Amino acid sequence: MLTLSKFDQSHDERFPAESLREFAFGLFSRAGISDVHARLVADSLIDANLRGVDTHGVTRLLGKYVERLRDGRVNPRPDLRVLAETPATAVVDGDNGLGAVVADFAVRLALGKARQAGSAWVGVRHSTHFGACGYWTRQMAEAGMMGIGMTNGPSAMAPWGGVAPYQSTNPISFAVPTGKGWPLVLDMATCVAARGNFILAKAMGQPLPQGWAFDDRGEPTTDPDVALRGTVVPIAGHKGYGLSLFIDVLCGILAGAAFGPHIGHMYGNDPRDQNLGHVFAAVEIAAMADPGEFRRRMDQMIDEIHAVERKKGVDRIFVPGEIEMETAARRVREGIPLPAAVVQEFQKLSQELQVPFPRPGSAGPA
Amino acid sequence: MLTLSKFDQSHDERFPAESLREFAFGLFSRAGISDVHARLVADSLIDANLRGVDTHGVTRLLGKYVERLRDGRVNPRPDLRVLAETPATAVVDGDNGLGAVVADFAVRLALGKARQAGSAWVGVRHSTHFGACGYWTRQMAEAGMMGIGMTNGPSAMAPWGGVAPYQSTNPISFAVPTGKGWPLVLDMATCVAARGNFILAKAMGQPLPQGWAFDDRGEPTTDPDVALRGTVVPIAGHKGYGLSLFIDVLCGILAGAAFGPHIGHMYGNDPRDQNLGHVFAAVEIAAMADPGEFRRRMDQMIDEIHAVERKKGVDRIFVPGEIEMETAARRVREGIPLPAAVVQEFQKLSQELQVPFPRPGSAGPA
Repeated sequence: MLTLSKFDQSHDERFPAESLREFAFGLFSRAGISDVHARLVADSLIDANLRGVDTHGVTRLLGKYVERLRDGRVNPRPDLRVLAETPATAVVDGDNGLGAVVADFAVRLALGKARQAGSAWVGVRHSTHFGACGYWTRQMAEAGMMGIGMTNGPSAMAPWGGVAPYQSTNPISFAVPTGKGWPLVLDMATCVAARGNFILAKAMGQPLPQGWAFDDRGEPTTDPDVALRGTVVPIAGHKGYGLSLFIDVLCGILAGAAFGPHIGHMYGNDPRDQNLGHVFAAVEIAAMADPGEFRRRMDQMIDEIHAVERKKGVDRIFVPGEIEMETAARRVREGIPLPAAVVQEFQKLSQELQVPFPRPGSAGPA
Repeated sequence: MLTLSKFDQSHDERFPAESLREFAFGLFSRAGISDVHARLVADSLIDANLRGVDTHGVTRLLGKYVERLRDGRVNPRPDLRVLAETPATAVVDGDNGLGAVVADFAVRLALGKARQAGSAWVGVRHSTHFGACGYWTRQMAEAGMMGIGMTNGPSAMAPWGGVAPYQSTNPISFAVPTGKGWPLVLDMATCVAARGNFILAKAMGQPLPQGWAFDDRGEPTTDPDVALRGTVVPIAGHKGYGLSLFIDVLCGILAGAAFGPHIGHMYGNDPRDQNLGHVFAAVEIAAMADPGEFRRRMDQMIDEIHAVERKKGVDRIFVPGEIEMETAARRVREGIPLPAAVVQEFQKLSQELQVPFPRPGSAGPA
């Protein structure tokens, strides 16, 4: 995933993960959600920051989530309900709650059903932004399952050959346990680079790399201003368009949420509920393979890939999720970097909601 | 999918689909497989040709499948067995049968379980090449299900940053019913272009397009000879590498087949059984949504996408599977094109196995 961390973070102040977690928890509590929910949303955001996925951490989402709770655009006390179920499927109504709260409910439901039936699909409707997709599949891998997660989102990408946005940059994630103490996790958006990067490039006065953006006539552009009025580029052309569309079919139509341009935007003044859809699939490893043998063969695959001869200039070959796992180990020690603009935003929120903002530092509570 | 049909077919002779189907059926029967199995393998190959996916039709696969049955490398009478099952999972041993025979068994099992439990995952081990992945998911869509299919295959793609092949160009397919009389079907390999295209470009003395191939040092090349000693390029760089690897995890490790370079090659003199793995997932639409409402919303999505404003020079916007559906309607009338070299190969097989080879023509039995 292309993230803000691709950009220069050398001037960012660092904050201990645990104190940022308490800050996020405090803000969510003040914004009216239950302690249990405040805890799980804070955990999901801090986890993304630890792994280097700052686009899906407190950096970009904490202020926005709190604002939407305070504005009444997101329901702080959702009535999460199972609308329909069979032994191996369920459909959940998220009641316009925070996506992380809804996703946590749906993932637990998928795990319970997969434990009983061997596998399960859970669809979610009427949800909102749920953070990093890989956070949810990792929960499934850590419970001994193969996990798949997907979500749709606000329109940003044109159908292949079109000029206007229709579907979103819908991500898909897969995760499985290994014997190495960390799961294999793939978490990929179906676009080359997210719109957040266009906003950042504009703020930094830099052109975009080739291949990231189309203008509003469907032609390639490297001008971030022009790109923001155009569309994002799907991965692999028509293949990424097709994959993103199928994720929308599953999350939007099968799960009964909105789809395509009918999904509400999280940014701007869109008056609609987002009505996002998510889908989670869980397969109990033990239902299909001996779990010890599964982990042994996973480790064999990982070791063999690490040992493949490398291209000139390449230091290491990584498996999916490995870079994020190593970043997390480092950021637990060194702290989470926050740009100055984000620190200012948090200090303002700290005053408004009377939640103490932590001092910078490398590790441990402030 | 990039296919042989991208190349000039103007000099190819055309044959009625039904007479080629009878020819394929005859060859398979003579090669020792049961009539029921001969029928279903012939159907799966002709279907790919009708849809324009000639790389997965009789064009490339009929002679190879028959050769492998006659050489004893594929088991003509496999003992297909369910090794383990729960209400919503199963693992099937394909006993080194033709992949289409094994896939048909597994898809029927997945449909039956999904009918009972709401959804199901079926893993297959010890299988061989099963033709076009989208053929199998389309069976599920036509049964009112959301279908997902995947397979692994012989190594051809390097891990991102590596120079030697590890995993295959593992395809994934999704299909769902619509109200339009044809299902939405995505069927995509995780490479930019398959090795078969390098062989064809070499035969035609043409360079490869940029971005299709790496040489054996992991550097880009357009020389088909060099490409054949190198690796295929994953879609979207590290994302395609990760997606292809996860398909191998599911098909190879979760389903208990071989994975990575441990899979036998269908071409050349590889003495190993292929030991391919496949995974099929089926979700009963009616378990999660009202089926009529599902189809109505699918049609709304398709109509909206068709109506998106088009980029200059683009005549139509397609949804996944639409081009193949239209090609099939045309080829049913006009016949299936076969290159002269394939016609010669079939005439030789016709004499050896004493199965009449049809005369060229547009439609109806010869």
